[in-house]
Formats: sequence, structure tokens, C-alpha cells
Amino acid sequence: MAKYKMTLSYDGTDFGGWQIQPKRATIQETLQQAFHTLLKKQVFVTGSGRTDAGVHASGQVAHFSIEEALEPNFLIAALNGNLPHAIRIKSIEKAPETFHARYSAKKKIYHYHLHLDPVSCPFRRRFTHHVRYPFNQALLEEALPLFCGTHDFTAFANEANTGAAANDPVKTLYSIEAISQEGGLRLEFEGSGFLYKMVRNIVGTLLEVAREKISLDAIPELFAKRDRRLTPPPAPAQGLFLMQVDYPE
Amino acid sequence: MAKYKMTLSYDGTDFGGWQIQPKRATIQETLQQAFHTLLKKQVFVTGSGRTDAGVHASGQVAHFSIEEALEPNFLIAALNGNLPHAIRIKSIEKAPETFHARYSAKKKIYHYHLHLDPVSCPFRRRFTHHVRYPFNQALLEEALPLFCGTHDFTAFANEANTGAAANDPVKTLYSIEAISQEGGLRLEFEGSGFLYKMVRNIVGTLLEVAREKISLDAIPELFAKRDRRLTPPPAPAQGLFLMQVDYPE
Repeated sequence: MAKYKMTLSYDGTDFGGWQIQPKRATIQETLQQAFHTLLKKQVFVTGSGRTDAGVHASGQVAHFSIEEALEPNFLIAALNGNLPHAIRIKSIEKAPETFHARYSAKKKIYHYHLHLDPVSCPFRRRFTHHVRYPFNQALLEEALPLFCGTHDFTAFANEANTGAAANDPVKTLYSIEAISQEGGLRLEFEGSGFLYKMVRNIVGTLLEVAREKISLDAIPELFAKRDRRLTPPPAPAQGLFLMQVDYPE
Repeated sequence: MAKYKMTLSYDGTDFGGWQIQPKRATIQETLQQAFHTLLKKQVFVTGSGRTDAGVHASGQVAHFSIEEALEPNFLIAALNGNLPHAIRIKSIEKAPETFHARYSAKKKIYHYHLHLDPVSCPFRRRFTHHVRYPFNQALLEEALPLFCGTHDFTAFANEANTGAAANDPVKTLYSIEAISQEGGLRLEFEGSGFLYKMVRNIVGTLLEVAREKISLDAIPELFAKRDRRLTPPPAPAQGLFLMQVDYPE
């Protein structure tokens, strides 16, 4: 068996997220179907983490093992030819036996795109959240440092609806940057790891700050109470991109 | 009756073009339905020109006349609230009785987006044409001036499948510019008017030049022969955007 690391992009709009589920087509299932078409056998594809329904990725990482010794560039072309255009494999490389897309990850980068023009945009609607209310960007930027550093993020994590053991709720956010871009703002999150819906929950809270519905003082209180039910609702899926997953050399 | 000029954007992917037709939902029909929902009557919306199935617009202009004296900003919000997010009205203003979105137009700008990375991109697939073969950009740029100026564009015009009288085939292209952008190239066309499928037919020919399938010398010959059947096939619809329509002050 040979192990491979794969990097891929996807438009998550028409998928029920990464992980296989009974009701909707998922990224993982679609990848495994492409392998089955090529190799006529079941190949299990393990992602660095699940992305939710409607969330996009520009640098998701996954691993898989196959018996066949295949040249990576051949495998990229063969798989992409058997995938819908909403999913594109960008690179495949051989990986050591010890590599695990999820457990070996040491850093992840997510971007969240906010569209702030008064009228929404047909070309951005799949890939941004359109903010329709007055938006105090200075206040949002003041809130960013309150989320950075090492915290118990229980207040900003939904419970995953799987039997998986709960993650350690203590995570480190290295930085959150607000970058102006055409039509709005991009929030860039860099962290050691992320809990289920953590980025969308943080953005949901930041949106309430920008809307002047909750004060900056409320944020340390939300952290301290460790109760997801007290935190504002998550921001919509379509603004979120998993951009990059880093591993030790 | 009061006449209004409207500017709008649309993602043409899921529409059968601008003009009402029996088989598929169109932009014109969807706009007229929104008017009907609001005003309970038939309002005819006349565009600056038809865009084909799958072609986008970021600055299509149309006119309409209604009996009701309605404030333009109210009308924008009321219509956008009754339109799918793939269509957004950006502005509405009162227009003189003599204004006609099609016959008053004096200049149009179209952009065509080419994606040149080896692997296609899930986020650009609705809005660019992905070029999969070796691409000689220098040669393409050499060909651009051959299309500029005043020509009989019969060789680059499809016959419209309507009973409309044929347009004058002599048009003036003021400029075609090739602008590098992330992942590829944008071709910007500025002209006095465009025949049916003219931009896509010119891009189709430019692609054959970049692919080194036809020479620069072939272009003046194609113009001279005035026979669409000798010209390469049109470039796909999804790369094309109607960006701007200009009118006399």
C-alpha cells in the first residue's frame, strides 16, 4: 500500500458538506466514487476535518492509501476527469505511512468573506455573506484581539452530531485579520485547530458587534460562561473557505 | 406614463438568456414577473440587447414605462425583493420619453474571462472559460488590432434565430485590451455596437490563434470572405460579461 496526500478545492454550495451522510451528496463520497470508477474498489479518503454543508475549500487536505503505484500527475488528471467541476484536485504527493490528514495537522487558515455593498451581487452570492444592516467595521476590528490567543472555545463550538469523542475545547487562535477587498471585507483566521462551527460562531458574534447589538465587554463574558446557547447564531456557510492546512515538515 | 432606465447585473448560468422564449426562464421574463407581482399588471422591459443563454451582465441597461409615479430607490428595493438573487437591479432613474435602451445606446463594453491555470477552478467555473491547451498569449495580443476599427463583421456574426431584420454588419470596435488577472486573462471589448454572438466569435478565433491553429494572416481573409461557416466556433458563453452600455448625455 502507498499513502498519498491530496490538496483540493471545492465549491460547497451544492454539497451536504465533507462527510458522508445518507441524505445528500458530499465531497468525501464524491471523491470515493471517482476512485471507485478508476480502480474498481473502495478507497477511503480522510480529510483534515469536516467542512459543513455550503462551506467551500481552496486548500482542503486529505489522505488515502492505494495498492497501485501510480504517478501523482496521472492520478490528478484521472480523478479530475471523473469529478464534477465543483471539485478540483490541485495536487497529490506521496506521503509517509505516519501521515494523517487530520491528526498530523498543526495549523489551519480559514477566510470568511463579507459583502458590504447595499445591493447584493449575483457573482458573489455563492461565496460571500451579504450584510444588509449598518456595519460598524471599527468596532468589529476592536473585537478581533479578544478572540486571539489560547482560550476554552466551548461558547463558540456547536456539538457535532456524530458519535465522535468531543474535541479538547482549548484551542489557540494565532491571529484574525480584517482585510478590505472589493465590495467588502475578508476575515482571515489562523489557528492551531478549530472546533465544530467555531469560525462561523465567532463571525456570527463579530457581526452582532458590528451591528452594535452586543458590546465588546460581552465577549469575555461569553467565553467565561462556556454556554453555546448564549452566543449569537453562526454566520452563514457560504462566506467560509478553508484555505490552508499546514503540517510539520 | 413615466419612463425609467434601469441598470442590472445577472449571473446568466441558469437562464436561457435575456429574451423571452418558451422553453427556459429568461432574464426579461423574470423581471416582468417581478413587476407583475408588485403592480399586478404587465410591464414590458426592453433591454439594450439580448444576451445569450449563460452570458452574464454586470451593467445591462433596460427601460420600462409605468403609470405609477414611484420613487426609484423604493422601486429598486421592491423589485430586488421579488427577484432571485441571480438578478440584482443596481440603479433605476427617470428617463426622458425619447430614451430607448437599445436604439439610444452609443457604446458597449464586454469582458471575456479566460482561466489559464492547468487545473480549472471551482469558484471561477461559472464565470470564466478554462483553456486546457498550450496558449500563445503573445500571438493572441498581436491579433487584437486586426479586429479593431470599422469593419463588416459578417464573418463573426451568427444569424439571430428571430424574425428581426438583420443588423447593419458594419460596426466599429474602438479597442480590445488583454489585461492579465489572477489565474489568467481578461479581454475587454469596447465598440459602437455588436452583432449576434460577435464577441464570442471573435474570442473563438483568438483562441485558435493562441493555440497556433490559425495564423494572423487568416484573419483579414476571414473578414474578406464574409462567411460565418469559415470562422472557428464561438467561445463558450460562461466567460462573457456585458459590463457597460453608454448613452448620449
